[in-house]
Amino acid sequence: MAMRIRLSFERPEGSGLCIMVDLLRASATITAALDRFREVIPVADIEEAMEYSRKGYLVAGERGGETLPGFIANSPLEVKNYRGDVLVLTTSNGTRILESVKSDALVGCLNNLDAVAEAARELSDEVEVVMAGVNGRFAIEDFLCAGEIIAAIDGEMDEYAEASVLAVQDRSLVDDAIRRSRSAERLGGLGFMDDVEYCIKRNITGNVPVYRDGRIELMEEIRRLH
Amino acid sequence: MAMRIRLSFERPEGSGLCIMVDLLRASATITAALDRFREVIPVADIEEAMEYSRKGYLVAGERGGETLPGFIANSPLEVKNYRGDVLVLTTSNGTRILESVKSDALVGCLNNLDAVAEAARELSDEVEVVMAGVNGRFAIEDFLCAGEIIAAIDGEMDEYAEASVLAVQDRSLVDDAIRRSRSAERLGGLGFMDDVEYCIKRNITGNVPVYRDGRIELMEEIRRLH
Repeated sequence: MAMRIRLSFERPEGSGLCIMVDLLRASATITAALDRFREVIPVADIEEAMEYSRKGYLVAGERGGETLPGFIANSPLEVKNYRGDVLVLTTSNGTRILESVKSDALVGCLNNLDAVAEAARELSDEVEVVMAGVNGRFAIEDFLCAGEIIAAIDGEMDEYAEASVLAVQDRSLVDDAIRRSRSAERLGGLGFMDDVEYCIKRNITGNVPVYRDGRIELMEEIRRLH
Repeated sequence: MAMRIRLSFERPEGSGLCIMVDLLRASATITAALDRFREVIPVADIEEAMEYSRKGYLVAGERGGETLPGFIANSPLEVKNYRGDVLVLTTSNGTRILESVKSDALVGCLNNLDAVAEAARELSDEVEVVMAGVNGRFAIEDFLCAGEIIAAIDGEMDEYAEASVLAVQDRSLVDDAIRRSRSAERLGGLGFMDDVEYCIKRNITGNVPVYRDGRIELMEEIRRLH
């Protein structure tokens, strides 16, 4: 039976398995962090993140791309300089989306494209890809990343999902659109252009982060424990 | 200065010039009707349309693709069998969108693609393309038609508009997606497959319908009178 796939913006319409896509940069940061941390705790609220910081946790986070004072950057490249048991992460969009998810959510980006697609097929016969967007607005980088993930899953799509796949037929146009996106331009202005280039890389990791009960771990870790 | 273009779903976000896109079939019906009627009056409400009918007006309309009893079909091919001063039209989605528009709206489809794009450039330095969708849901045929119109206008796009242009790079994939759309399948089941094929035709007319103060006339007619 064909896998059913739908695409949504900002909040899941259903209550089944989701893939959260916040390409620049929460998805990539979480995916990279799980090489060096056992788990990531996403928190939507800055106050809550600061509370974790006061308790001695390593905390990463930004608002509008700017790293919060005293925090590690929400950057896949920067988190590679740290190691530990738990990383707490608060970001403008992605962490808020995760908190609204009603069931398990995988975290998808271009870095783990095929791995997250394969995991979705393994876990369910139905998946909803949720674009984080930017402050309630459509973000082209999330739409294009979603399109590549959906093409990799290869199932029976709703029309929004199908539209995203049509938009990713030409890889060089996709890369160009991501580099020219508002998000990429803002990150470039803040000195994070290397992050943008890193986030565009396809399939550099097999990490599949799974959000469950407020924490994110690698799928293989969850399998091992449960 | 580059023309600014944005793409919206269901209701305009701004208050400037709009292009309403309801490819299957309100946009095409209105565009074709203006060859044979001086004006089209779009009404969102069936009761209001029936009131016009009782007064002796020619009335076309459908809900969910099914022609309302005693009405002409919302069909670009069928309206060509009639002629008159005024055609009243009520449809599931497009007429409702027009009633929510705050200023002038052009009616765009593939049939009048280049003509509507050129008219938009003439009238304003900013335009919002509004996809009608189907009962509040994203409709791929409107997204793809919007993408072709936006590509023809060729300006500075918001990210949603840019995504629609990326999706229409390959004409044969576009035609295929429109033919396989839920809307096209429903119309096919109701015996309107010829309408779908007609609506896919590009640039077969120079008609540019303009919605203003509750009525739709050809742009050249409005120019002549005002």
